Amino acid sequence: MALLVHKYGGTSVGSLERIEAVSARVARHRAEGHRVVVVVSAMSGETNRLQALGLDLGGQGAPREMDVLLASGEQASAALTAIALKGLGIQAQSFLADQLPIRTDSAHTRARIEHIATEALFEALDAGVVPVVAGFQGLAGDGSITTLGRGGSDTTAVALAAALKADECQIYTDVDGVYTTDPRVVSSARRLPRVTFEEMLEMASLGSKVLHPRSVEFAGKYGVPVRVLSSFEEGPGTLITLEEDGSMEQPLVSGIAFTRDEAKISVRAVPDVPGVASSLLGPVSACGIEVDMIVQNLANDGGQNDFTFTVKRGDYDRALAVVQEAADALGAGPVVGDAKIVKVSVVGVGMRSHAGVATQMFAALAKENINIQMISTSEIKISVVLDEKYLELAVRTIHDTFGLERPEGVV
Amino acid sequence: MALLVHKYGGTSVGSLERIEAVSARVARHRAEGHRVVVVVSAMSGETNRLQALGLDLGGQGAPREMDVLLASGEQASAALTAIALKGLGIQAQSFLADQLPIRTDSAHTRARIEHIATEALFEALDAGVVPVVAGFQGLAGDGSITTLGRGGSDTTAVALAAALKADECQIYTDVDGVYTTDPRVVSSARRLPRVTFEEMLEMASLGSKVLHPRSVEFAGKYGVPVRVLSSFEEGPGTLITLEEDGSMEQPLVSGIAFTRDEAKISVRAVPDVPGVASSLLGPVSACGIEVDMIVQNLANDGGQNDFTFTVKRGDYDRALAVVQEAADALGAGPVVGDAKIVKVSVVGVGMRSHAGVATQMFAALAKENINIQMISTSEIKISVVLDEKYLELAVRTIHDTFGLERPEGVV
Repeated sequence: MALLVHKYGGTSVGSLERIEAVSARVARHRAEGHRVVVVVSAMSGETNRLQALGLDLGGQGAPREMDVLLASGEQASAALTAIALKGLGIQAQSFLADQLPIRTDSAHTRARIEHIATEALFEALDAGVVPVVAGFQGLAGDGSITTLGRGGSDTTAVALAAALKADECQIYTDVDGVYTTDPRVVSSARRLPRVTFEEMLEMASLGSKVLHPRSVEFAGKYGVPVRVLSSFEEGPGTLITLEEDGSMEQPLVSGIAFTRDEAKISVRAVPDVPGVASSLLGPVSACGIEVDMIVQNLANDGGQNDFTFTVKRGDYDRALAVVQEAADALGAGPVVGDAKIVKVSVVGVGMRSHAGVATQMFAALAKENINIQMISTSEIKISVVLDEKYLELAVRTIHDTFGLERPEGVV
Repeated sequence: MALLVHKYGGTSVGSLERIEAVSARVARHRAEGHRVVVVVSAMSGETNRLQALGLDLGGQGAPREMDVLLASGEQASAALTAIALKGLGIQAQSFLADQLPIRTDSAHTRARIEHIATEALFEALDAGVVPVVAGFQGLAGDGSITTLGRGGSDTTAVALAAALKADECQIYTDVDGVYTTDPRVVSSARRLPRVTFEEMLEMASLGSKVLHPRSVEFAGKYGVPVRVLSSFEEGPGTLITLEEDGSMEQPLVSGIAFTRDEAKISVRAVPDVPGVASSLLGPVSACGIEVDMIVQNLANDGGQNDFTFTVKRGDYDRALAVVQEAADALGAGPVVGDAKIVKVSVVGVGMRSHAGVATQMFAALAKENINIQMISTSEIKISVVLDEKYLELAVRTIHDTFGLERPEGVV
């Protein structure tokens, strides 16, 4: 007898058959006695189609109108889902953002939710009606429609679950949960029954695309239990919770994340004076290039540093040119780069209290003669940069070392 | 320096190029010093696409949700049009029905407009902003989205023009005005510079699809000057006005309308007792079949009538079966029918005061040996039913007889 928020992404409502499958699941959960609030994205491809139309007409300069345009996609899928539910004999009603309302700031195309009024939803639930809420959209103070940016429907679902104090926010997607690593690389990769928000955040921003980092952050902040499940098959999925909720002992390492499309740039012999880092990276950021890892080491001869950072591979050439210019201005040594690197990260809240994780990881890589080019650590993550040819071998070796294929992990 | 409402149908906003052409016209009218409010339909094909999706899921049983679904089409085209206008450097803003609001009753899928709040529109106009209003949609008292049914965007435009006390409601469509008859049948057919609402109504319901009868009725009721123009080429179009507005003398006949897909059904030897007409037609209406002309004549032998009516050709077989049953129950004579007939009508407010129009029309048909099967008249219309093979000849003959190819007509 729980209150559940179901969130369905574009693929899950991508066809009439898929929408009917969604309705059937909602019907099952209702039959089990749960109260369900549904949040939907636009049908897959629809947001891109609308966006292309709008941008072709110059939508870049009309963010308010782009939001009106894009919001129509979720409006249609919410209506279709409500229709399908009614077709199964279930009372249902679509709700658009302005009908609740879901209040946001007025930052069009990337608005932030400020408040969700829940009266209409509870009224509907009390009357036995399944509310189907259009995700991704909001209502600004001036009455304009806003949208929440990429991953917006996830954010709608999590925020709604928080406002409703729902027992669980269930995110239905095309994977059946969060894995210890990518099963296409390590066949013994295992679905995690649960991860913490912090781990999920590290894994999401490292390339596991299951949930948008923003919605994970939101869920963590409001303590909303989120479950990632498959829209295509039944299963328990992965529960994402606060660390304190974990009844079992936290495993040392939860998962191995990696990203392939990385590149690194090094500036040699940088004068050891304050302000150097910002002189080098300022122009890079100004070009809209995102910098990921940053490492600075005092070089052997003292008084001069080697300064290295990584960017997305697609930004490599631009970043190289910009940094070369900045390095010349600083009187630094040569700028060298490598566009064939990858990043592999070990993530786990358990490593907070165990100093040995890094040693264990480095030893495993050394045993396979894999050279580590860069290292960066945070409280619950250790990342290394490697030659791209070692990616699969490194991930498998580390996965083995920490025994991630076994349900309880090793210590 | 007029206040104009522009209305663009689905074809007129059917592609990005068409939307850009719409924006260019609005820009021209603005440059000429006019204030413009734009009303748009959904892009051509979009409403049908959405409707098919909804009905496939059982939308018939969910009218509220069908309205949410269908309204998304006009939402998208309003946003796209506003984007295109901004691309031309014109300030523009989309308005959805609930943002004005356009209040309607709660009859989903066929709602009636009750009130339009104009404050936001005048505010926009005063600030030099072109409001782009999503047609076809409304807001019910309970906060639900409604739609106005077929021809709904025309109705939105006319109602908006009435509420704004606009100088003219310009309906941009794929024809350049209202003609004396179909130019594909009579090459000398002439565009009418003006017609009255009454004439337009008779012509529209007789098959000239330029404007939905409901919007014409609405325009007549509120005395909104409506102009029908081509969205594809410049021209004066046809002005639809109150009869009293006509500064020139009304021509005897304004146009010849016709419909091809008619069928007639006759019941012979119907007993001459009260209630017979409803006994015969009641079951037909109950099947959802629309009856058009109805004629009853006392047959030669007295005491028994011949009863004849027309239906759309597509309903012929069903209607015949239903009437046969009803006739049997009444003890009437044989039921006979003809599915190869057409209706030709002469329309003109001028004929009110000229009794000779019918005579002139019948004489013209007789001269060509065209047999008249049925006749029906109203104050400003005379309709005849003919064998379908005579359609073109009849229309041309009548067009000639009344001199409709000449700008002033004949008396």
